[in-house]
Parts: sequence; structure tokens; C-alpha cells
Amino acid sequence: MKKKLVQTRKIVEHLTTTYESYVSFHEADPLGIVWHGNYIKFFERGREEFGRQNGLDYGGFYENGFATPIVNVNCNYFKSLKYGDYYKVRTSIVKTVTAKIILNYEVYNKEGELMCEGETTQVFVSREGELALYAPSFYIEWQQKVKYSE
Amino acid sequence: MKKKLVQTRKIVEHLTTTYESYVSFHEADPLGIVWHGNYIKFFERGREEFGRQNGLDYGGFYENGFATPIVNVNCNYFKSLKYGDYYKVRTSIVKTVTAKIILNYEVYNKEGELMCEGETTQVFVSREGELALYAPSFYIEWQQKVKYSE
Amino acid sequence: MKKKLVQTRKIVEHLTTTYESYVSFHEADPLGIVWHGNYIKFFERGREEFGRQNGLDYGGFYENGFATPIVNVNCNYFKSLKYGDYYKVRTSIVKTVTAKIILNYEVYNKEGELMCEGETTQVFVSREGELALYAPSFYIEWQQKVKYSE
Amino acid sequence: MKKKLVQTRKIVEHLTTTYESYVSFHEADPLGIVWHGNYIKFFERGREEFGRQNGLDYGGFYENGFATPIVNVNCNYFKSLKYGDYYKVRTSIVKTVTAKIILNYEVYNKEGELMCEGETTQVFVSREGELALYAPSFYIEWQQKVKYSE
Repeated sequence: MKKKLVQTRKIVEHLTTTYESYVSFHEADPLGIVWHGNYIKFFERGREEFGRQNGLDYGGFYENGFATPIVNVNCNYFKSLKYGDYYKVRTSIVKTVTAKIILNYEVYNKEGELMCEGETTQVFVSREGELALYAPSFYIEWQQKVKYSE
Repeated sequence: MKKKLVQTRKIVEHLTTTYESYVSFHEADPLGIVWHGNYIKFFERGREEFGRQNGLDYGGFYENGFATPIVNVNCNYFKSLKYGDYYKVRTSIVKTVTAKIILNYEVYNKEGELMCEGETTQVFVSREGELALYAPSFYIEWQQKVKYSE
Repeated sequence: MKKKLVQTRKIVEHLTTTYESYVSFHEADPLGIVWHGNYIKFFERGREEFGRQNGLDYGGFYENGFATPIVNVNCNYFKSLKYGDYYKVRTSIVKTVTAKIILNYEVYNKEGELMCEGETTQVFVSREGELALYAPSFYIEWQQKVKYSE
Repeated sequence: MKKKLVQTRKIVEHLTTTYESYVSFHEADPLGIVWHGNYIKFFERGREEFGRQNGLDYGGFYENGFATPIVNVNCNYFKSLKYGDYYKVRTSIVKTVTAKIILNYEVYNKEGELMCEGETTQVFVSREGELALYAPSFYIEWQQKVKYSE
């Protein structure tokens, strides 16, 4: 089982965060393993933890006149978590010069094995529904504050 | 296994509606049966079908200045639907003189056996967050239009 | 806002457990608040935490030849959690002499206000699908170990 | 809004199926639109409808000694469905000579606009957990029955 995406990405190492939890009964499917679509929820929990720890506030985007819709989600599955299993989600931000927020997620079990890896891509859209070709200034400021480019 | 609630309720027979579907893989749990909490989603689908067929429009409530939050949900489970099973939800409105919308849901399998039965209670809350002690006039009008009291 | 059920129940105080988390984006509805059916998931997380802390292992039931299906779930809603809100679930076991596991759940926000309160009732069913009229011996042993009756 | 993946894929036209439904309240997020992860559920409903209409039975795989886990899911989002919206999922099977089942999903609104498009890739795994390098014979038989190669 190999790490696919993250090895081909330049991520901002010092911003990577970890979210930990246990698989709940309602997250497992008739095979007793996490239903594949539920990892998208685990990614979202990872993304929210990333936001909390790094001060990236989605509400703040909104107040500044932008939504940040997800335009792509992608996930490669390697192994399966079972009901009751501990897991952790490592969330990393990918370096990009485009007006996008690309986050990479790796889900590990207790033994540190990679269960799946995925990515979400978000863009900036104004209140009028227009796609921003340049990242809004408050996002640039956030990048500077957290030393995104170092 | 017996029909519990609906036999003790006065329902408006001619307004009862039926929603039909199949159990999807992601709705079943490690025992291969519908996870108990997912029946609350089936109830909501029943409630939405009830609204579509009887012209009870929740958006309309909103425009008229009211939200209709659910203040109680209750469900008794008798038998289990499995992945792939056909099911139908019969949704009935309960007669009440209080300022509440009480809906009763019965979920049946293909053989017509009762899987579970539940109820939701909704109240009317103004935009200021105040509980309405009397049903709003547009709800009364809806009741008259559909012959709720006959 | 009043505590309804738990005040009328005899609970085993020293077994009450607490589960803490934050409301995720996918748990909130178009009104920006937790969708009412998702509290059933919060109850399950509370129930699982109760099991982990008090050594009540559902897998163990299975190995001992019993399933413990939920036959009733009930929830009263008082206030609403919003996206991003911290919450905690207090899970208590109710004293009963019947062959049932009755758990009570209270969901609180950061300020300690009661958001909702619910209950689940589980019975013991043998592998042959027969309802147990007496609690199985391994459950009685668990009750003794945790001083359920004191 | 552009069709991305399906234009670069060779699909088996006469096997494409359609699943239709309405967006339920619990599928919409605080922005009032379908939460992005819920489209993975819509894909599964499309996949199940594809199976029902084309006689591709996942239970049958199991009886024949194989599981068909999803190893990749991918989705591109173009526009948003709102609460109450009608939608349909067009599910197509992609032509491949590898031992994989690749399905393509397109979600359309009532006006026929493309909301999102995605793909799932499934492999064949034996009961011993070994990846099959060649498609199992019963899958080849299914392909012949439905004229997959024509």
C-alpha cells in the first residue's frame, strides 16, 4: 500500500494538523467497514481541525464576500477501518500559485497504516457568483501570517 | 408485532400519502439492516412527499414569517429492512386542536409488514423566536383547503 | 428550557459518561443548525463512549449469542446547536428491573444549556431471533461489576 | 459548464441507466445546497439502479467468492442542487480491458444542466483478500450477456 498523491505534492509541512476519533457504528456498512463515502466526512473533520488550529476561518471568508466551494474531491482507498477502530486524519495544505485552496488528507489506523488518501480543491467565488482569478487579499494575508510560502 | 401509535391517534385519512424507495447500501449497518437512525431520514422523505402531494409548503411557512421546528421525534422498531429491500412510508397527519403539526409515519416492507412506526411534532415559531400559541392563519387556511377537520 | 425525561428516571449516577465534539459542516441543515436526525448519531457516540468507559462491549454481547437491537428512540428538542459549536453528550443508564438497556442522553452546548434530551431502549434477542425475557447472565455480571444496583 | 470525464471515456451506451429523485432537507447544507459529500450517495443510488436494470448483482459477486471494493472515487462539481430540487443520475459503465469496474455518474437538474460528474473504480478481491488480476468468469459472462463489448 503506497502513499499516492501527497508524495507528488509540495505541502506546507508546518501547517499539517491531526484529527483523531473512533469509527462509530453508523459509519460502518454491511461489510463491517467504514462506508467509502464516509471518508469524505472524515476529510471535512480534518479540514475543520486544520481551520481551527491554523486560524483559517470559513465564516471569515463569508464576511469578506467570498464563498469557497469545493470543485473537486478525490479519494484513493488502500485498506479499511472497521467499526470501533481508532483513526487519525492528517490534513496538509498544498502549495499552489493558483487561486485555489488544495488540501490533502491521509487517514491512518492505530498501527499507522494508510487507509486512504484524498484531496479537495476549493475556489473563491464572489457573492455575485463570479469565480475569482486571484486569491482575495484576506486569504493572502492569512498565507503571510502562517508563513505559507516558507 | 403490533401497530402502536397510529391506532390511538385520530388521523385525517384522506390526506395520507405514500413514499416508496429501496434501501441503499449506505443506509445499512454492520448487521446488514437499516441503521435505526436512518428511519428518521425515511420519515423526512415521507413528510416531504406529504407536503408535495397535499400542498403543504415549508418554504411558504418561512415567507409567512414562521419556522416549524421539530420539538419531538419518536420511533418504535418492530422488524428490520435489509440492504436492497423495497419499502414504503405511509405519512398521516394527526388531528389536534393545539398549535402543532403532528405527523405519523409507518414504514412497511414489500410484504406489507410493519417495520417501524414513528411520530414528529412541529411547532410554529416566529422570526423573533417566539412560540406561537395559535396556529398561524395561513396554516388554518391550508387546513380548510384540504378539509383537515372533516 | 426544562429537563424532561431524566428527572423522572432513576439513573446510575456513577456510570454517567461524557462525549465531547464540535458540530461539523455536514451535520448542519439549511437553517445552519444541526439537522434534528443527527442528534441520533450524537446519542450513538454517547452510547459508544459509555461502553468504552464502563466496559460494556457490544461485540461481547454478540459472542455471547445475543444482539441488543434498539426498539425505541425518543428525543425532545429544546434549543439548536449551530455549525462549529462545541457540544457534549452526557449518557446515563436508567435503572430498570426489566430485561432492557435504557440509556438517557442529554446534549449540552458550551454554556451548559440543554439542547435536547433523548432515550434509547434496547432488548436482548438470541441468535434465533427470540426476545429474552430475562437479562443474559453476562449482562448481570456486568451490572455487578459496575455496581449498577448501588 | 463542461462535461469533463465522460467525453474522454468510451462508455457502453446501451447500458446507461437513470435514477431520479428529489433533494431531501437532510441532504442540504447551511448554504441551502446539497452537501458535496452527499453526491457520493447519489452515485451509489445510480450504481444500484444500474445493477437492478442491467442484472449486475453485487450479492452474486459475493456468492461467487469475490468482493468488489471501491478503490477510487472522484467528483467534479459544476453547479449546485438546492433543497427540494428534482435531479437525475445517469450511470454509465466505462469500457476497460483491465480487471476493474469503472462507472461514470452525471447528475443533472430539471433543466438538464450538469451539476457534477464523477467516477468510481472497483476491483475484484477474493475472500482471501487477494486482488484478482483477471476479471472473474461470472463477470465475463455478465459482460457477454449484456453485450458489453459491442
